[in-house]
Amino acid sequence: MEKFLVIGERIHCISPVIRKALAERNPEPILKRAKEQIEAGADYVDVNIGPAEKDGEELMTWAVQLIQSEFDNVPLALDTVNRKAIEAGLKVYNNEKGKAIINSADAGPRIDLFDLAAQYDAKIIGLCAKEGIPRDCEERIAYCTEMLEKAMELGMDPSDILFDPLFLVVKGMQEKQSEVLEAIRQITEMGLKTTGGLSNISNGAPKHVRPIMDAAFAAMAMQCGLSSAIINPCDKELMDTIKTCDVIKNNILYADSYLDL
Amino acid sequence: MEKFLVIGERIHCISPVIRKALAERNPEPILKRAKEQIEAGADYVDVNIGPAEKDGEELMTWAVQLIQSEFDNVPLALDTVNRKAIEAGLKVYNNEKGKAIINSADAGPRIDLFDLAAQYDAKIIGLCAKEGIPRDCEERIAYCTEMLEKAMELGMDPSDILFDPLFLVVKGMQEKQSEVLEAIRQITEMGLKTTGGLSNISNGAPKHVRPIMDAAFAAMAMQCGLSSAIINPCDKELMDTIKTCDVIKNNILYADSYLDL
Repeated sequence: MEKFLVIGERIHCISPVIRKALAERNPEPILKRAKEQIEAGADYVDVNIGPAEKDGEELMTWAVQLIQSEFDNVPLALDTVNRKAIEAGLKVYNNEKGKAIINSADAGPRIDLFDLAAQYDAKIIGLCAKEGIPRDCEERIAYCTEMLEKAMELGMDPSDILFDPLFLVVKGMQEKQSEVLEAIRQITEMGLKTTGGLSNISNGAPKHVRPIMDAAFAAMAMQCGLSSAIINPCDKELMDTIKTCDVIKNNILYADSYLDL
Repeated sequence: MEKFLVIGERIHCISPVIRKALAERNPEPILKRAKEQIEAGADYVDVNIGPAEKDGEELMTWAVQLIQSEFDNVPLALDTVNRKAIEAGLKVYNNEKGKAIINSADAGPRIDLFDLAAQYDAKIIGLCAKEGIPRDCEERIAYCTEMLEKAMELGMDPSDILFDPLFLVVKGMQEKQSEVLEAIRQITEMGLKTTGGLSNISNGAPKHVRPIMDAAFAAMAMQCGLSSAIINPCDKELMDTIKTCDVIKNNILYADSYLDL
């Protein structure tokens, strides 16, 4: 199987530093975080500009060109609910090092983002949800299938879709975790790819517990077939675990130095 | 499901300190290691006296009585290829806190240890092997079934058997890991329990890599259903991972302090 795909989550408007830099079109903090993530092993850099209702198109265009021109056309995930901003980003995106990822569609009102993916030959994250949180594994698989049908109608390659089973917080939703993991297993058995915002699972847990939970869950999810995640690649414990699972799954060749590669 | 069962591996004749203490019938080093493991969260303490060809019966009797009298009849795994020594240990074993575990039978020449387990109402580890290393998942399941049949004929409760899929070293046997993990999954689906010597997988890897590999593999194996392992419970990273997987699998209730419990 292919090596696990790491999407770096740290350029996100929820961070005050990034929000300010985006608002002021200040390149420096954004490039700094992109560099840290690429050096830590991110395959893609996610660019979350928030809803950006006023100036989303211009802002995404600026951010895509800024990061790609500085880092040799590093592949990006374009992350906003603003459809026009996504499209503006796709228009200037350079796919020399990998297709853009649209983050994200769902099986509900945002299913039309698949049209954009097909039109611009982009990858797309498909959240296995429609309204609210899916109840169980079965509901996730139903939404996965709806999105797959939509993509097939558009002539998309199924390997360009990353299905997101919607990771849930362990604290308070302990009994739901097996449903999420089983959904990953079933989607993988269908020959499809998966991704998701892994750190959701440890929300609300004590700070020293979070990296341990994230790493343990990542290993369990990779055993089920999880092929990608949106994470902080600067979390060394998590990255070490991902590399180790890739070795155990025989996705990358063992070497005594594999953690440093 | 039940909480993961931790069998502490540190009273083992491969350790020079323990070998010497066993030879000299010196209680102190043995009790020290038993205490450390129980305090670190071991549910069972494994007592490996080696082949002990000369005085195995007397040695196992001494060790069982020593540890159980000091630690409130803590449950033990009796670990030796010397059948008479196992039987001698079972004769003096106090099962007030849990049945003894015989470590271990296999589907080959050591299958007769199931007779002892049935006779003394003990649990038993059944290595899914006959001669040499099983080739793949299928061969493991075949041996598992043979041992299960033997146990059923003897009227044993299947939950008293811990099937050991035989963990293999990652370095050099990378492509075999998926077979081991799939065997755990299939044995679990049959409603049976599993265990094994987990640290085998990281043999030969650099010292700083081993705890990371052991923890990642443990999480992957627990996702497949692994219900027990023979480990060093003083490896905090590994124990934290096991507790976390038990939380994610909803085997133990989440609390912010779960790592300290």
